[in-house]
Amino acid sequence: MSIRDAVSVADPAEVGSAMHELMAELYPICRSITGEGFRTTLSTLAKHVDLDVHEVPSGTQVFDWTVPREWNIRDAYVANSHGERVIDFRDSNLHVVNYSVPVDAHMPLTELREHLHTLPDQPDWIPYRTSYYAEDWGLCLSHRQLEALPEGNYHVVIDSSLTEGHLTLGECLIEGESTDEVLISCHACHPSLCNDNLSGVVLATFLAKALADASPRYSYRFLFIPGTIGAITWLAHNEDKVDRIKAGLVLTCVGDSGGFTYKRSRRGDAAIDRAMAYTLATSDSPYEIVDFSPYGYDERQFCSPGFNLPVGSLNRTPYARFPEYHTSADNLDFVRPEHLAGSYSLTLAALRVLEEDNTFLNLSSKGEPQLGKRGLYGSLGGGSETERSQMALLWVLNLSDGQHSLLDVAERSGLPFELLVDAADALLDAGLLAPA
Amino acid sequence: MSIRDAVSVADPAEVGSAMHELMAELYPICRSITGEGFRTTLSTLAKHVDLDVHEVPSGTQVFDWTVPREWNIRDAYVANSHGERVIDFRDSNLHVVNYSVPVDAHMPLTELREHLHTLPDQPDWIPYRTSYYAEDWGLCLSHRQLEALPEGNYHVVIDSSLTEGHLTLGECLIEGESTDEVLISCHACHPSLCNDNLSGVVLATFLAKALADASPRYSYRFLFIPGTIGAITWLAHNEDKVDRIKAGLVLTCVGDSGGFTYKRSRRGDAAIDRAMAYTLATSDSPYEIVDFSPYGYDERQFCSPGFNLPVGSLNRTPYARFPEYHTSADNLDFVRPEHLAGSYSLTLAALRVLEEDNTFLNLSSKGEPQLGKRGLYGSLGGGSETERSQMALLWVLNLSDGQHSLLDVAERSGLPFELLVDAADALLDAGLLAPA
Amino acid sequence: MSIRDAVSVADPAEVGSAMHELMAELYPICRSITGEGFRTTLSTLAKHVDLDVHEVPSGTQVFDWTVPREWNIRDAYVANSHGERVIDFRDSNLHVVNYSVPVDAHMPLTELREHLHTLPDQPDWIPYRTSYYAEDWGLCLSHRQLEALPEGNYHVVIDSSLTEGHLTLGECLIEGESTDEVLISCHACHPSLCNDNLSGVVLATFLAKALADASPRYSYRFLFIPGTIGAITWLAHNEDKVDRIKAGLVLTCVGDSGGFTYKRSRRGDAAIDRAMAYTLATSDSPYEIVDFSPYGYDERQFCSPGFNLPVGSLNRTPYARFPEYHTSADNLDFVRPEHLAGSYSLTLAALRVLEEDNTFLNLSSKGEPQLGKRGLYGSLGGGSETERSQMALLWVLNLSDGQHSLLDVAERSGLPFELLVDAADALLDAGLLAPA
Repeated sequence: MSIRDAVSVADPAEVGSAMHELMAELYPICRSITGEGFRTTLSTLAKHVDLDVHEVPSGTQVFDWTVPREWNIRDAYVANSHGERVIDFRDSNLHVVNYSVPVDAHMPLTELREHLHTLPDQPDWIPYRTSYYAEDWGLCLSHRQLEALPEGNYHVVIDSSLTEGHLTLGECLIEGESTDEVLISCHACHPSLCNDNLSGVVLATFLAKALADASPRYSYRFLFIPGTIGAITWLAHNEDKVDRIKAGLVLTCVGDSGGFTYKRSRRGDAAIDRAMAYTLATSDSPYEIVDFSPYGYDERQFCSPGFNLPVGSLNRTPYARFPEYHTSADNLDFVRPEHLAGSYSLTLAALRVLEEDNTFLNLSSKGEPQLGKRGLYGSLGGGSETERSQMALLWVLNLSDGQHSLLDVAERSGLPFELLVDAADALLDAGLLAPA
Repeated sequence: MSIRDAVSVADPAEVGSAMHELMAELYPICRSITGEGFRTTLSTLAKHVDLDVHEVPSGTQVFDWTVPREWNIRDAYVANSHGERVIDFRDSNLHVVNYSVPVDAHMPLTELREHLHTLPDQPDWIPYRTSYYAEDWGLCLSHRQLEALPEGNYHVVIDSSLTEGHLTLGECLIEGESTDEVLISCHACHPSLCNDNLSGVVLATFLAKALADASPRYSYRFLFIPGTIGAITWLAHNEDKVDRIKAGLVLTCVGDSGGFTYKRSRRGDAAIDRAMAYTLATSDSPYEIVDFSPYGYDERQFCSPGFNLPVGSLNRTPYARFPEYHTSADNLDFVRPEHLAGSYSLTLAALRVLEEDNTFLNLSSKGEPQLGKRGLYGSLGGGSETERSQMALLWVLNLSDGQHSLLDVAERSGLPFELLVDAADALLDAGLLAPA
Repeated sequence: MSIRDAVSVADPAEVGSAMHELMAELYPICRSITGEGFRTTLSTLAKHVDLDVHEVPSGTQVFDWTVPREWNIRDAYVANSHGERVIDFRDSNLHVVNYSVPVDAHMPLTELREHLHTLPDQPDWIPYRTSYYAEDWGLCLSHRQLEALPEGNYHVVIDSSLTEGHLTLGECLIEGESTDEVLISCHACHPSLCNDNLSGVVLATFLAKALADASPRYSYRFLFIPGTIGAITWLAHNEDKVDRIKAGLVLTCVGDSGGFTYKRSRRGDAAIDRAMAYTLATSDSPYEIVDFSPYGYDERQFCSPGFNLPVGSLNRTPYARFPEYHTSADNLDFVRPEHLAGSYSLTLAALRVLEEDNTFLNLSSKGEPQLGKRGLYGSLGGGSETERSQMALLWVLNLSDGQHSLLDVAERSGLPFELLVDAADALLDAGLLAPA
């Protein structure tokens, strides 16, 4: 099955359901940038794709950063004077500030309040908070929950550990005809948050599944990594490989109901930027294309000036533009199978453009070749309308001077890329074209 | 008489009438891509311009093509059982599918119908059909004529011949000061069709007449050739000459009442593209400028990637955009003298821009030269309005750094090209400018 | 005091008043392109700035021009038959056509009229007229004044002299850290005319005062010169210095109530063009940016093709666009202190952009450096809003590849230039950035 077949064969409803199912399996796990939650996530993904897992020791220097201590958590709660849990990690892993140091203390509500985080504007939602690089602890809860807490003494327990351990990276390489690579990266370090991060994780997983069966031209490297530190660690340990990366995408927030947002690579005119722009423009979805900016997800690292990789980023609604962002409302209901499926189809279609884009040389470039004697041309006679497929042949011949790829031809002619690929195939078969 | 004089002297009404008259003389001839009709057309043109006629034998290989057998026709008709001609080549040469093989057969209407072509949507018009490269025969008629035919037996006669012979090319070279050439090409292979092809033929003829008297700077090569195979044959036999071609135009459909359509060369920014754009923008006519596409007329061949010549194409209403296209309604009434005259004036004006565009060096480039002491500058004193002719002097001086031609100056300054030519002449006379 | 302090410290109302006061002191002087009036003007300015005065003898060849004879005038009038002065130079120095040759003659009004200039459309205003390079004489008066003159004989006296003397140039050099120069030029050759020329003269003077205290990075060269011949003379005598000029501005018509008009240098994309565009776009003033054209003020000379210096021109309402232009109505009331102050602030702000624009190299360019451990980054945690100052750090880091200056970063990021300068300072202090 070629990538072309993968695009057309996949039943969107089926794929969407399967992606959502995997997401539901991953949802309860308490992930962080290190620790068992992250490992469990990778072992779940490994049931779907061929995954290499790398463990990097705490304290390892990676460029300007140091791999942090490993964080693990067993339990956490706040109990009232009756010993009843009024905030309970077992209800939602968002209740604990991620990377909280261990605590076992009694304190009055007034003192406890300084460690409690709520969203007064969204009184039913629990916020998501982290404290990766500053030693601290805290608990998150809904504002309504906070308001219901009577004054009094509370027992706070965070049964976590911060120890020398490892940072864990998941990597799946699908070897194609070429050693040139397409990088697909997603962060998998957020706990029970669906759009911001699990939607990207399941999309990457299902893309990897499709490509593993598609005998692609490029090799595809999928990264399932913790945000920021994971990307920096991977780059630091793979500097010798980055030259192979000819295109890339950072995927997250791809499961909500919004239109697509493609953020260009720092280069702005990389092959992936053009393939995404073409695919979005010819899709039925609403979309927006925005220029690179040095904030967002791990495109920040891949596009840092010392690398400047041709890596863009695909979202539906970008981070912080939807109210559910980084709250308990970014849950399994917020992300729908049909939106995951739409993101899957769109991304595969863009990868197909990358895969099938080629530059050719017209071997009969002086005047037009006589297509009619090769059966490539309808008997136009005096008729006035020419079929688009015949225009595709003429456009490919005319622009195949070694300077224009099929995507260039598509942009200049306004003809569908697929039609031009077919035209190029027919002309190759007829001996009228050669790879440039 | 310079080209400037040719532009201004010509009486449009007179030129338009003379062009229409020549078109009327050419109209009845049954032309095809080879044969006596094409030769008679050239000998008619030879009464107006100095024409070289080249005969290329059937079977000659020209790039990917082979010169076809020569087609000639004496008569053709369909007669009913009473021997009455119900379709008669003598009424219109469009009645025969061009390049039909000879036929002399009796058949019922049911069988004959398979060889009859009509336009149900335009029931009074005869379509124009060809079968150059597939051996076939057929007859064209109005739909009303077809509907009036009773069932019964008919006698079909096509007294044509397809024999080893020649392809004929007409060429007129007007030598200018330079061996750099401007190519003006038109196809002359359509039978009684006025806008699509005779309008281009008579426009090219009258441009050649004007330029023969104009001592032009460029040499001008006019081609009167059959479409596609003629251009390919000419290119194949003149590969050593194409480097001389610095600009070119393919002319056809220049006699209808529509605004102008200029189709850029494949390069998109050739001198002819800029000269036409400027001339159209400063004309009073409605117009449209479109990018090159590899369909249309012989610009397809001149702009094939192996040549990529700076050749654009001028039409009024382009092929297939007017209902009369390739029908008997594209006749002497459809093309009007005033539209031919307008096309003549516009094309000459654009050629004038090509001829007069030059790049200069300001010989007094440090500060402004003192124009006043040379009588080139009005005494501006404290007055507030500066004449446009003085602005023209200043603009030409300021941009004459060897990098900007007068057309660049016109585009940047918004001043008329003619005024800048005059300014450059005055500055040359004053010794302030030299050719770059 | 740095230029940054100069921008923020200056009290606009105070500066505007001081500029208008100096203008009032200069207003009565009868200036011309040579002579005592010009010298008096310079000696007045020398009370404010450190001025070098250069005298260039009449007859000196400067490129295509010759330094003219020096013109001086003591008195001029037209008296009626009763000896009463009906036109009196002592009322307004505009009454005499500038550079008028001496006259002492009696003539009837009919003959005198040929030497009288009025503005019938503005009957109360005296026009300004000159005759620098043609020997002539004349008088200017209001149209109402002319209409009131009875027929009869008049005594015309112009007590002027045209003699071998000098052309005078004023120059003020403020040495900065670098020998690279910014040129600020204004013409100071018009008599009692405020917007067109004194507004530019006082703006240049006050900029020089501010920069003299500001220890600037660039050296600043201020020219107070006669229009056209002054600029040509200065260029001819300083050809060896012009390579140092990295930016420049010609200043005039900066005191009326109109919005700003910035005219780009001939290059169109010089540092001054970008600094002015940025400063105008981020100011509150209405403005227009126009392309270079070879008419206007001394940018014509600085941007002649033999020099092509990066010199633009700043006006409020450009010459000839306000009815008061070159009339007695361009007076001390027409130019207001607040408009002078606004021009001062805007120009200083643009110079500050020039001064502070720099290109850096990110010394930790692989991945992002860890800003948090350096105290440069707020604990973002899961919060959704990032401060603009943190975005400024990220943008400067991301684009500091030696190819982008801070102004590039400002344009691409949409962040204020000042914020990016501060970010770069912080990153320099943290050792994360080095000058490129």
